[in-house]
Amino acid sequence: MSTLFLRTLREDPSDAEVPSHRLLVRGGYIRRAAPGGFTWLPLGWSVYRNVENIVREEMDRAGFQEVHFPALLPREPYEATGRWADYGDNLFRLKDRRGNDFLLAPTHEEMFTLLVKDLYSSYKDLPLSIYQIQTKYRDEARPRAGLLRGREFSMKDSYSFDIDQEGLQRSYDAHREAYQRTFDRLGLPYVIVSAVSGAMGGSASEEFLAPLEVGEDTFVRCSDMVCGYAANTEAVQVRAPGVASTDGVPNAHVEDTPNTPSITALVSLLNHEPGLRRSDRDWVAGDTLKNVIVRLRYPDGTTQALAVGLPGDREVDMKRLEAQVSPAEVEPFGDEDFAKHPSLVKGYIGPGVLGVHGTSGVRYLVDPRVAAGSRWVTGANEHGKHIVDLVCGRDFTPDGNIEAAEVHAGDPCPQCGSALEIARGIEIGHIFQLGRKYAEALGLSVLDQNGKQVVVTMGSYGIGVSRAVAAIAETCYDDKGLCWPREVAPADVHVVIAGKDEALIAAAESLCANLHNEGVRVLLDDRAGVSPGVKFNDAELIGVPTIVVVGRGVATGTVEVKDRKTGVKQDVSLAGAVPHLVALCR
Amino acid sequence: MSTLFLRTLREDPSDAEVPSHRLLVRGGYIRRAAPGGFTWLPLGWSVYRNVENIVREEMDRAGFQEVHFPALLPREPYEATGRWADYGDNLFRLKDRRGNDFLLAPTHEEMFTLLVKDLYSSYKDLPLSIYQIQTKYRDEARPRAGLLRGREFSMKDSYSFDIDQEGLQRSYDAHREAYQRTFDRLGLPYVIVSAVSGAMGGSASEEFLAPLEVGEDTFVRCSDMVCGYAANTEAVQVRAPGVASTDGVPNAHVEDTPNTPSITALVSLLNHEPGLRRSDRDWVAGDTLKNVIVRLRYPDGTTQALAVGLPGDREVDMKRLEAQVSPAEVEPFGDEDFAKHPSLVKGYIGPGVLGVHGTSGVRYLVDPRVAAGSRWVTGANEHGKHIVDLVCGRDFTPDGNIEAAEVHAGDPCPQCGSALEIARGIEIGHIFQLGRKYAEALGLSVLDQNGKQVVVTMGSYGIGVSRAVAAIAETCYDDKGLCWPREVAPADVHVVIAGKDEALIAAAESLCANLHNEGVRVLLDDRAGVSPGVKFNDAELIGVPTIVVVGRGVATGTVEVKDRKTGVKQDVSLAGAVPHLVALCR
Repeated sequence: MSTLFLRTLREDPSDAEVPSHRLLVRGGYIRRAAPGGFTWLPLGWSVYRNVENIVREEMDRAGFQEVHFPALLPREPYEATGRWADYGDNLFRLKDRRGNDFLLAPTHEEMFTLLVKDLYSSYKDLPLSIYQIQTKYRDEARPRAGLLRGREFSMKDSYSFDIDQEGLQRSYDAHREAYQRTFDRLGLPYVIVSAVSGAMGGSASEEFLAPLEVGEDTFVRCSDMVCGYAANTEAVQVRAPGVASTDGVPNAHVEDTPNTPSITALVSLLNHEPGLRRSDRDWVAGDTLKNVIVRLRYPDGTTQALAVGLPGDREVDMKRLEAQVSPAEVEPFGDEDFAKHPSLVKGYIGPGVLGVHGTSGVRYLVDPRVAAGSRWVTGANEHGKHIVDLVCGRDFTPDGNIEAAEVHAGDPCPQCGSALEIARGIEIGHIFQLGRKYAEALGLSVLDQNGKQVVVTMGSYGIGVSRAVAAIAETCYDDKGLCWPREVAPADVHVVIAGKDEALIAAAESLCANLHNEGVRVLLDDRAGVSPGVKFNDAELIGVPTIVVVGRGVATGTVEVKDRKTGVKQDVSLAGAVPHLVALCR
Repeated sequence: MSTLFLRTLREDPSDAEVPSHRLLVRGGYIRRAAPGGFTWLPLGWSVYRNVENIVREEMDRAGFQEVHFPALLPREPYEATGRWADYGDNLFRLKDRRGNDFLLAPTHEEMFTLLVKDLYSSYKDLPLSIYQIQTKYRDEARPRAGLLRGREFSMKDSYSFDIDQEGLQRSYDAHREAYQRTFDRLGLPYVIVSAVSGAMGGSASEEFLAPLEVGEDTFVRCSDMVCGYAANTEAVQVRAPGVASTDGVPNAHVEDTPNTPSITALVSLLNHEPGLRRSDRDWVAGDTLKNVIVRLRYPDGTTQALAVGLPGDREVDMKRLEAQVSPAEVEPFGDEDFAKHPSLVKGYIGPGVLGVHGTSGVRYLVDPRVAAGSRWVTGANEHGKHIVDLVCGRDFTPDGNIEAAEVHAGDPCPQCGSALEIARGIEIGHIFQLGRKYAEALGLSVLDQNGKQVVVTMGSYGIGVSRAVAAIAETCYDDKGLCWPREVAPADVHVVIAGKDEALIAAAESLCANLHNEGVRVLLDDRAGVSPGVKFNDAELIGVPTIVVVGRGVATGTVEVKDRKTGVKQDVSLAGAVPHLVALCR
């Protein structure tokens, strides 16, 4: 440490929002270099490389083959699949000196597809899984949380190529298993959740989430462990109720509903006016049908209004909505938009004017709970009026369904009906069944056993390598600093020289040399003029799993061995220290 | 090889100009992905990683510490040092979604300087040498020769930080030695030549050139091995002759020189007209003073005329000229330029009108051979007339010297006067003494022993890692294919199953398993339905150093072991094959 390129900080960096960012900067692992871009210092790069190597070893073990593509790519292949436009502002685009369009690749589906097309032509060549570990670029609107969401980051992306869906399922399962082994070795806890595939296209897809409060992803999990359902909230499919009977439901009737600025006030009015009450039970907020209008902006710049109908006890979940309408972006429906649609009466919008065939012409998609036979109170498209006993299917027909309503803790599990739990997580891996979208767009087909051209079926699989470093840091730290799992730690043992005595320094150096010869990775704090207290604090902050203090005990032939995570200390004889530590490290 | 992602090609790719490009594509190592961008296939990536690991090991061994920067960087630091402009069209520039300027870094001087400034503040922290191995970007006008000159490539760049010039010299020497060890291990022959530093700034600098005909660099070497002088032609410093006596040289006289469209014709006229002849010897082409006008274009877009005076037996060497005027670019001086300078008479330009104080106002720099006292025939600034016996220093005074004349084989060595040899090479490494340029521009200083702020002295050192792969390929191939040095080869042993017999296949597989257990890296050609002939050809093309043929010999208990490079074959007993091959590989 007397020569290591390192400065630890006592103070938290002012821009750090999450513990991993704070501690990786304070511990001298990373340093901000650009908005959303970080420099790895020697300790950090060592952890990064340990993580990268584990990922590589597990990919290789699964029989996937490593290749490496450029990051700077021509526009054409991404144009062919539509992603040049679909990625919108998230793509870094540039021109070369001749004015040709290039991009910095966010992922490489197109290039992998073209490469396999270039080399392979027969079903005999398949299955194939190839991967790379590479720097990726995404022009994030809000780079944040240090390594968790940057604009330049390292990713392992794999792609599988199969002759049919059964083959894809096998490749998908092989990646799923390899990912489980990888995250197990990284010491990263994870939940596998169903996901939507977003801009990637494709069908089945699952995410590996590290369940952490700082995560940007929200997921649900069934409280019944036997059921095992888990999904990103964006991917939750609300179970639609069965078709209810409308026998005995009065005809819909428009009513004055003065002074009902909130749903609570409206429900209260409904339950207190005899003519409005339900015969079977009280009205509740979930019986009101709220219609929210948004503007969708498509990558080509065109916009379209969309009405989302959902029970009044829920808000629209913007991430769920965005996942459904991607690559379009969701924008607020402003006063100028209302002005263009005079039939939409703000605060009183009802199905009467909605739908592509309605007066407004605004597309109308509803939550699955707004099912045939369900009975609602909703806006009557006139100021101060609501329509009561409006029955879906009898009195109005939406254009379709959309999963855009908030998911609440306690909602029924779509699989078994038990209560759902909600938690947050960091996406550390994602596996997709892409299907034939990319192969079709780019003309990747092979001859099958009957000599017929068959479009290849693909999968795409990613692990955020730099993000994994931060996720690991998030899972193992305390108020003193980081606590790395041994396999990714920058060293196995952190030896602190706690004193100036020459015998003590000699003992420490000899211990380090012997450990080194045994293949133990050692970090030696041999800084002169730094107090033992500062050295101890730095050791706790840096977070090597085993700390050895070579101090006063040397006089009586002992050193102190401390477990960074548990804090348990043990005096070990100097003579026995090497075998003791070697055993700890294996 | 039955599952390896590989296709070898019989035909040369149409766009390949050099052997390494041709063979790396044919052997299934790389594939073109973009203009100046290549994809590494599994075999190629394995070679690349071997090379990268050797580079890393040698840097670590020398005590340099590895870090890692983003490639996508903000404009500001490069603006501070002037490189944002100086790099001209060679820099990939882009804007993020907020319109901020970014670049894809060609090298990282600025960022390393700022990082050290961020962390360090005292002379006690120095010396420091840190490095990274990273993807670099340069918008080459003419990407060519495969991996030798791409727009996206991998480079190891190191930077040293010292308190003074003596420290820098030690750091520089340490890098020089580390580079020698690195290239020795890579099996790359090299010559260390003096170089100019170009856009990097700084003073002393040397290049490591692999002496190969396909190289873009031309260098000179003294024919006297004891002298040892070697320099990139751009860096050759012509030895100026001593001041000659002008006693007895007639006064300059203007003469009609009709019908002398060439220098040969002019010299012939001079030697045949009695009034023009020299008394001491015949005129030769080297006595004529040729004045070439060019236009310099500076990064800010401004232009300036420059006159280069040089002996008439030499042309201007554009690369030498460009190296002198960098970051300005050299453009032809066209008719419209001549129109703006009526005193310049095309074909008859002489010193009489040149120089910043001359009629033309055009800056006039001359070859060092145009020294004080040297006697010339040159243009008289009138059509059809030359001026004879014009003596430098007596009759005209240039604005200064410039090294822009072609270097010829046989020219005197600037160090010892022996004849120079000329050869071509590929730049595989470059070491610079940067000095204080970057530290000054970015404010990197530390407190010295006396508590005084001292600007840090820097060095910068690069190895082209991806280029080294191609350079190695260029140094070891034959008409059958590649011949890798063992340490970088994708495998140690290439085992060919030459037959369909089950016993033979079993013998080969068992041999491979045993070799693998001994730590020998094996490539097994187990492709079904591929003839032994095709397999042999592929083995020669791929170029693993040892080829083992498991064929008919198995019946009598032998396999054939062939050295790829020498072609020497040897029958080895199956039983003794493993120890024999293990010995070969160590």
